[in-house]
Amino acid sequence: MKIKRIGTLACFSFCLSSLLSAASMEDLTPVKNPEQLAPGIWKLSIGDVSKELRYTDHAAAPPRMEVLNEKVDTPYPFADNPISFYVSPDKRISVRIPADTDESIYGFGLQLDGIKKSKKVLNLNVDHWGKGNGRTHAPVPFYISSKGYGVFFNTARFLKAYVLCGNRKDSPNLPEPVDRNPVTRTAKRWTALPDSDAVEAHIVGNGLEVMIFSGESLLDIVSRYNLYNGGGAMPPLWGLGFWNRTKASYNESDCDADIKRFEEEGFPLDVLGLEPGWMTMSYPCTFEWQKERFPNPGAFSQKLLDQGIRLNLWVNPYISPEAKLYEPMYPLSGSHTVWLGIVPDYTLPEARRLLAEQHQREHVDIGVSGYKIDEVDGYDQWLWPDHATFPSGTSAEAVRQAYGVLLQNTTYNDLFKKHNTRTYGLIRSSNGGASGYPYVLYSDSYNHEQYITGLSAASLSGILWTPEVRQAANDREWLNRFHVVCFSPLAMLNAWSSGKKPWDYADVTDEVRKTVELRMRLLPYLYTAFSEYNRKGVPPIRAMILEDGYAEKKAVTQKAKLDDVRNPYEMVKTVQKTNQYMFGPSIMVAPFYNQYHSERTVQLPEGDWYDFYTGELVGSNTTITVNAEGMENHLPLFVKDGALIPMLTKPVMNTRDAYGQKLEVRHYGKKDGEFTLYEDDGKTFDYEEGVFRLRQLTMAEGAGNEKIIRDKAPAMFGPVTQWTTMNK
Amino acid sequence: MKIKRIGTLACFSFCLSSLLSAASMEDLTPVKNPEQLAPGIWKLSIGDVSKELRYTDHAAAPPRMEVLNEKVDTPYPFADNPISFYVSPDKRISVRIPADTDESIYGFGLQLDGIKKSKKVLNLNVDHWGKGNGRTHAPVPFYISSKGYGVFFNTARFLKAYVLCGNRKDSPNLPEPVDRNPVTRTAKRWTALPDSDAVEAHIVGNGLEVMIFSGESLLDIVSRYNLYNGGGAMPPLWGLGFWNRTKASYNESDCDADIKRFEEEGFPLDVLGLEPGWMTMSYPCTFEWQKERFPNPGAFSQKLLDQGIRLNLWVNPYISPEAKLYEPMYPLSGSHTVWLGIVPDYTLPEARRLLAEQHQREHVDIGVSGYKIDEVDGYDQWLWPDHATFPSGTSAEAVRQAYGVLLQNTTYNDLFKKHNTRTYGLIRSSNGGASGYPYVLYSDSYNHEQYITGLSAASLSGILWTPEVRQAANDREWLNRFHVVCFSPLAMLNAWSSGKKPWDYADVTDEVRKTVELRMRLLPYLYTAFSEYNRKGVPPIRAMILEDGYAEKKAVTQKAKLDDVRNPYEMVKTVQKTNQYMFGPSIMVAPFYNQYHSERTVQLPEGDWYDFYTGELVGSNTTITVNAEGMENHLPLFVKDGALIPMLTKPVMNTRDAYGQKLEVRHYGKKDGEFTLYEDDGKTFDYEEGVFRLRQLTMAEGAGNEKIIRDKAPAMFGPVTQWTTMNK
Repeated sequence: MKIKRIGTLACFSFCLSSLLSAASMEDLTPVKNPEQLAPGIWKLSIGDVSKELRYTDHAAAPPRMEVLNEKVDTPYPFADNPISFYVSPDKRISVRIPADTDESIYGFGLQLDGIKKSKKVLNLNVDHWGKGNGRTHAPVPFYISSKGYGVFFNTARFLKAYVLCGNRKDSPNLPEPVDRNPVTRTAKRWTALPDSDAVEAHIVGNGLEVMIFSGESLLDIVSRYNLYNGGGAMPPLWGLGFWNRTKASYNESDCDADIKRFEEEGFPLDVLGLEPGWMTMSYPCTFEWQKERFPNPGAFSQKLLDQGIRLNLWVNPYISPEAKLYEPMYPLSGSHTVWLGIVPDYTLPEARRLLAEQHQREHVDIGVSGYKIDEVDGYDQWLWPDHATFPSGTSAEAVRQAYGVLLQNTTYNDLFKKHNTRTYGLIRSSNGGASGYPYVLYSDSYNHEQYITGLSAASLSGILWTPEVRQAANDREWLNRFHVVCFSPLAMLNAWSSGKKPWDYADVTDEVRKTVELRMRLLPYLYTAFSEYNRKGVPPIRAMILEDGYAEKKAVTQKAKLDDVRNPYEMVKTVQKTNQYMFGPSIMVAPFYNQYHSERTVQLPEGDWYDFYTGELVGSNTTITVNAEGMENHLPLFVKDGALIPMLTKPVMNTRDAYGQKLEVRHYGKKDGEFTLYEDDGKTFDYEEGVFRLRQLTMAEGAGNEKIIRDKAPAMFGPVTQWTTMNK
Repeated sequence: MKIKRIGTLACFSFCLSSLLSAASMEDLTPVKNPEQLAPGIWKLSIGDVSKELRYTDHAAAPPRMEVLNEKVDTPYPFADNPISFYVSPDKRISVRIPADTDESIYGFGLQLDGIKKSKKVLNLNVDHWGKGNGRTHAPVPFYISSKGYGVFFNTARFLKAYVLCGNRKDSPNLPEPVDRNPVTRTAKRWTALPDSDAVEAHIVGNGLEVMIFSGESLLDIVSRYNLYNGGGAMPPLWGLGFWNRTKASYNESDCDADIKRFEEEGFPLDVLGLEPGWMTMSYPCTFEWQKERFPNPGAFSQKLLDQGIRLNLWVNPYISPEAKLYEPMYPLSGSHTVWLGIVPDYTLPEARRLLAEQHQREHVDIGVSGYKIDEVDGYDQWLWPDHATFPSGTSAEAVRQAYGVLLQNTTYNDLFKKHNTRTYGLIRSSNGGASGYPYVLYSDSYNHEQYITGLSAASLSGILWTPEVRQAANDREWLNRFHVVCFSPLAMLNAWSSGKKPWDYADVTDEVRKTVELRMRLLPYLYTAFSEYNRKGVPPIRAMILEDGYAEKKAVTQKAKLDDVRNPYEMVKTVQKTNQYMFGPSIMVAPFYNQYHSERTVQLPEGDWYDFYTGELVGSNTTITVNAEGMENHLPLFVKDGALIPMLTKPVMNTRDAYGQKLEVRHYGKKDGEFTLYEDDGKTFDYEEGVFRLRQLTMAEGAGNEKIIRDKAPAMFGPVTQWTTMNK
């Protein structure tokens, strides 16, 4: 989406009057001279932030200054209309960020009900998905505005944000009130949510750091956020294959049987996930192998590795009195329990060391490739209370907000990275500053429309999201869900209770298999997209508003009918669906969703778009309708004019077999195309030392060309053996 | 309900070990010597409460010490197992109140989803009804325990309570964890909510006062709470008649027509409520008459009074720039607006004076009898943010929590009481300490089952609630709703948008009329019940758990089936309905509810119960089923053995006509009966100076007798002319 303005917020005369009024706004202190950290990045400090948990202190890696310093030095957006703050005697720190009434505000993390948050009040607390009040698995306190800036509240405090909602009485732009019951019908219509001219937010704490981002586009702003937080996550190649989680009660032979069936049914399989039953005790956990189910974990893990299959272990962080870790961890844990297990204070290096050592010894050393870290979200009634105490002195709320981040940090930096082995896993909560962690969020909420929205929402806040599949009401839903999960950061079936298998909905098994195979064939394309995330901050799966040429459709508003029972405040219902998204640089995904949904509209951005499967020109800057039957139940995929898409020439059953595979490069549309293919060893961090390879693929005047422009690593894939023109 | 224990919490040996462990609980400071305020009432002070808004400081009247001092001096419930607290560096004050794992905890204000709150986390914030998370119109921080004590958090801070939910790691009663995925099926079943041994709660603030109540029964505990807060509300007699609110757009002639139709249709009418359109501007408000609709308000009001009809005015407290009050109130208002109106700081005497003077001059002096004070609850997106500032320095959260209480205080004490005129009105939010305010809560939520539950919930927290009628899906629902509202503190039709009239559901009009008539006939009985609320703290409409002989039925639990989509945590669904209640001393109401509901079960407490209409013995300590058809669509009403019920001999169309009316006294069952009828002038506060009359009605061995035992006021009603034996 194009932004309307870069730089100052509005016209000169407006700014002058704002300045005067802002200065006179009672209690508020304007922030005049923010500290610049990098091109387009500034920091505002209020109070004493030294005692506060800041997300940037727990990022996966330091800021990518070498990349940021190459960026255009876009101007500070609040130079003329300053941000201001107030600190109450109750230690409540509030910030007022001026805005225009017509701004669109997007973001705030994994908000499954939609990415646009104007005119809403959000409680940004880590929780199970809270149905639109801001509480969610990853309530990242970062938003971007259609006016071309981003705001990041760099604090692990509970943050409550009033997004273009509410007005100060001394606001310079206070609208005229409207009578709700005018005597004449011609009077102006009353609204329950009058226009507002600010985003206001508060925490309770000692200090608050706010970071401001500007950039050349919304995508550029998001990229700078990711780069400042160390760059986006880089999964191993195997992480992009197909994942299957087993039932909680599975033992070794159940797992063996599963793997065999996958092979027999011709379904790819890269990762096998064990659910809680692999432990001697879970909820709370021991992290120790349940020998009745897995008598020889080392041999079991090796047997899987020999088949190219990685083992991922479910854990939650609450430690059982039966665990060997319990005694040493007890003094390092908080005052309260979760499911009667102790809650380690992972802000303490010693607690992190204890966990990492145990995990190293018992899991990673025998070949375990990563974790699914569950329950780091959790409802209030499950987790520690907000008044719990922790030995480090960190507040209970900060521990809760950052728990997912702290566990990502511990397992990533102290466990895998330390041993130069990449990991890819699942995490049930995340938050600010987490761009660099190779962990993907998931949920129990299971509404398919929301799961699709999650892909867009995550991309705005430096997090990854999987719309995992568990079960379905019917074949159509099963297929629709497989479509989406295969075009997500992590393609996983997670039937830990139902035990469903990909082939369990017989009428769509072939289509499901084809979808998984397509994901496998797209590995070169997707792996490069992740490298762009890592090196440039560009999210591999993205919201449409980050795309050039995409004009967000005006929300559909249903005019309110006053009713003393159903709608006493004449609230207007606004429906803004976020049901299509970008997959890699040039593929747009417009999935069918909800269990009976097999027809939908698709909004095509500016520029010609082509059908992925047929190469047919579909349209430009228009809305079309697609029907599942008309397209052989394929997932609707549309490709940009001029795009090059490198694919494996044939599907593989395991990413191990992708190495060295020959490539087909598809060229869509009429424009010349270019694609820089990224390759490395797919499993270590050597790429951070520059050990990677770049192949420039070009298509000009009908002729494809392949050129190695960097060869610091061996090739990952084979040569391009096929250039296909997709242009009808 | 009988309480299991008065005094110490459990056995001696348990207490000893608890004491030792409590002392060793990290960070917690035990409260050893609470200050006793009255028999069975103690105060615990943590930190500096002088800067905090305490509800008891804003009660309608001072504690009724003369009544409290007559009470049994029941022991302090936490003498052996002390309450303890912790104050964090963030000014978070938490309290741990020890409990037994099997305690039932009830209360916390107007919780429409059920009165039992064990194993729940509640956010006690004023809000629109929040669907079970604690946020509601009146989140009174007061609870009672089945073990015979009550706890009142005397603070207007947002309070979060963990009610028998969660465990400290150093708890003396920590249960053994259970493996969620045991290898053998015989293992103990895991639960997502392990047993807990405390109620914990916290606020952020300078200080917290906690009041502890004990008593001889749950009713006695609630009574002491009400008495400490000045005694229960005493409405004028007219307040107990029938109320009708008009459409928002009504003008004088529309009102006249309405009144005429009520008379023609034979429906009682005592109060006419004007909705927002009576003002020159509303949302925000001017409090000034809209002369296009009401050219001569004084004459209009007098015309109504001449017909015995009182005028009630809708207001909300947010002041329009068009109001004369705006300018003087501006400096006394908070930093933010609501619907663009200023928000007066009613903790300031000057703000109260300004409002009361305007209301006196423009409304009360011309005969307006009271107010419906709307929107003192409100969603976050409508009200001021939690970081708003107020000129008194009171925190925004405290202003929000207490706004309904402050407005009740202002209009009651500074306006009506000052002029020795009783009022009765409606309020959209209330809170602690409000027992004495003659204001009744209402809601937009409109779920009939919840509306019935509200009657029980309100009775536990010193508040009143009306399950007002607005519209219905069909005749049955209309009738069911009229049944309930006529057996509530305030019988009101509130069709401010739909304009529905009582006779608009033709097939049930006669039954609706009979129900209203029955309420009017019961005026002597109901008025005395309110006087017992005022003088003794006994709620006139009450939860069954406050009754002797009522054994709360075990909740129906639906065993959980594990499902990775529908129930991943195997949560057990507990259904505990609160669908019958007491009306006055001896009538039990068991209404039909939900739109098609015409059959239900009724749980009869111990002792013989009789059908109100026929006098037939129904049963004792048993569950029966009643059917609407079988009882001519009457509201199911059951009367205690020995009860005397004084009624008007015939219905009246207006409470004015109740004065001097002859009485019928019904005697139910076999036991001898007694009823002390209370009378006063029905409209002034002279009763507070002792100007009231008491008539002792007795029925012994089949003979009724009437005896005046106090005659400091003239009779309100005529003599008993009929003694009816209801005993088949």
